Amino acid sequence: MGEFDLIDRFFRRPVRRAVLGVGDDCALLGNTAPMQWAISSDMLVEGRHFLSTVDPAKLGHKALAVNLSDLAACGADPTAFTLALALPRADEAWLTRFSQGLFNLADAHGCELVGGDTTQGPLNICITVFGQVPAGDALLRSNAQAGDDLYISGLLGDARLALEVFRGQLALDAHDFEAARARLETPTPRVALGRALRGVANAAIDISDGLLGDLGHILQRSGVGAVVHTDWLQHPAQFDAQSVGMSPVLAQLPWPKRLDLALAGGDDYELCFTAAPDQRDAVLAAARESHTPVLRIGHITAESGLQVLDPQGEPIRRRFAAFDHFAS
Amino acid sequence: MGEFDLIDRFFRRPVRRAVLGVGDDCALLGNTAPMQWAISSDMLVEGRHFLSTVDPAKLGHKALAVNLSDLAACGADPTAFTLALALPRADEAWLTRFSQGLFNLADAHGCELVGGDTTQGPLNICITVFGQVPAGDALLRSNAQAGDDLYISGLLGDARLALEVFRGQLALDAHDFEAARARLETPTPRVALGRALRGVANAAIDISDGLLGDLGHILQRSGVGAVVHTDWLQHPAQFDAQSVGMSPVLAQLPWPKRLDLALAGGDDYELCFTAAPDQRDAVLAAARESHTPVLRIGHITAESGLQVLDPQGEPIRRRFAAFDHFAS
Repeated sequence: MGEFDLIDRFFRRPVRRAVLGVGDDCALLGNTAPMQWAISSDMLVEGRHFLSTVDPAKLGHKALAVNLSDLAACGADPTAFTLALALPRADEAWLTRFSQGLFNLADAHGCELVGGDTTQGPLNICITVFGQVPAGDALLRSNAQAGDDLYISGLLGDARLALEVFRGQLALDAHDFEAARARLETPTPRVALGRALRGVANAAIDISDGLLGDLGHILQRSGVGAVVHTDWLQHPAQFDAQSVGMSPVLAQLPWPKRLDLALAGGDDYELCFTAAPDQRDAVLAAARESHTPVLRIGHITAESGLQVLDPQGEPIRRRFAAFDHFAS
Repeated sequence: MGEFDLIDRFFRRPVRRAVLGVGDDCALLGNTAPMQWAISSDMLVEGRHFLSTVDPAKLGHKALAVNLSDLAACGADPTAFTLALALPRADEAWLTRFSQGLFNLADAHGCELVGGDTTQGPLNICITVFGQVPAGDALLRSNAQAGDDLYISGLLGDARLALEVFRGQLALDAHDFEAARARLETPTPRVALGRALRGVANAAIDISDGLLGDLGHILQRSGVGAVVHTDWLQHPAQFDAQSVGMSPVLAQLPWPKRLDLALAGGDDYELCFTAAPDQRDAVLAAARESHTPVLRIGHITAESGLQVLDPQGEPIRRRFAAFDHFAS
């Protein structure tokens, strides 16, 4: 039983009072006010979401970043968060660094710590974040339309690449490793892009478990399929002088490895979204306004199924495993 | 460094956008709408908040109950919650029982599960709960007034008594143990009482770490002191045919043990609240309306300090240790 089966079997129930319940990036509460509350909760466990050797300041950043990324995927503006923290012991040096990293990112987004809990126990960080979005404007996983363009933001695969170097499965020179490691340890939540895509994109999700797996959630919830091109993994590309799609580091790797890392790596915390073809100019304007590079990588189809095409346009038949927090 | 020092030093900062931040039972968000959101988050760790042998259905109940108790202390109506769950493995029998206990209590309070997270890791349950309260009506820790009466709801000490039996520090006959154990494993959040006390009580807190310790938070935040009587620990009392203050089981124990358990036991999840003397009839009406027994046990003083009086009215000079999630 994987993580999503587990949620479906034991914890997914229809909601009556909430606007949106279990199964999207955020829940939505408050259907009467002009603004709705978007809510998301993520739990980070040592060894599964971060390495025990990570700088606590980077851990504080990442613990909030993964939650802000869920708000970004809904197009919500961050407002506040709660922090529940289990620690083996009250280590002042650790807490100083952790809280610095956490508050630096929180302050950059005007997102306030309003409550929480601390207890002794195996290291565990649970943040619940609250954002606001005009009623009816939240970006959902369930609204992709056949014919939509399919986009990603930023760079995919580098976080997973860094993880494989940490695990000794790959080697990189020091400079390249630092670049990849920053993507793993201090991801950038795409809050400004999500906000700019309100009224422009039809569906969105944040890429935390690998592009194909997370895109699969959009397809399932929207009852559609998709074609994903991979020509963007042949040559590094630029959007407004920023690398987009594949980093120069990833471009050094053999083709099959690039596919694995970019399409099914995980921990990217970029956005995957769809928009109607007549919104192409609006998508580019949203990307420029939010200083976030975006790349069009495919389209949504009426027929179900997810087809990945090689640069010659032929279907790639191999399987890609999405990251599962219950898989070993 | 204890739990509260840790929070003060690393995580308490003034809020600018929220109505109320770290340091009360709930945070309050949304100062423009007619209703405010009350938010609380609690993390439960095996071995510290529950025993590994506990029935998962009771654990599901308790994980939500301790959060609903925080809403009760603010006088908020439960609306929704998120659940983040770390599990060593996806055990279907465990998940079935856990989700049953959780949803039974959630349904009884009309509180919907709207989102969350599941991951593999040492067993850890983090629930964040959302309630609604009319703007300005939330019960706070900081509003106790000199001259206020001091009240508790329900029974104190039995949860701690059961814990001491589990630890082999005390023995009880089977019937009495079951009664005490139910108080430990399936506490009753006093949501209806909290709601009924809106506009009646001046300050409130839920008793999770022991009466004197939690009352201390009210005194500190309100800048006042209190006198607590203990004559209610001499003879079992009744309110509308329900036991109140001390259970018949606790009444069997020697006097010093009763004091320890009732005044500094922890895990009671009753309310401690203050109200002006001219509100006595209103307090009794709130108790009857909510079918919750209450007992007046002392009063608030302008002078700081917490004085516990024996049944002869003499100060008790011994120390009572509040439960601390970072103390060993």
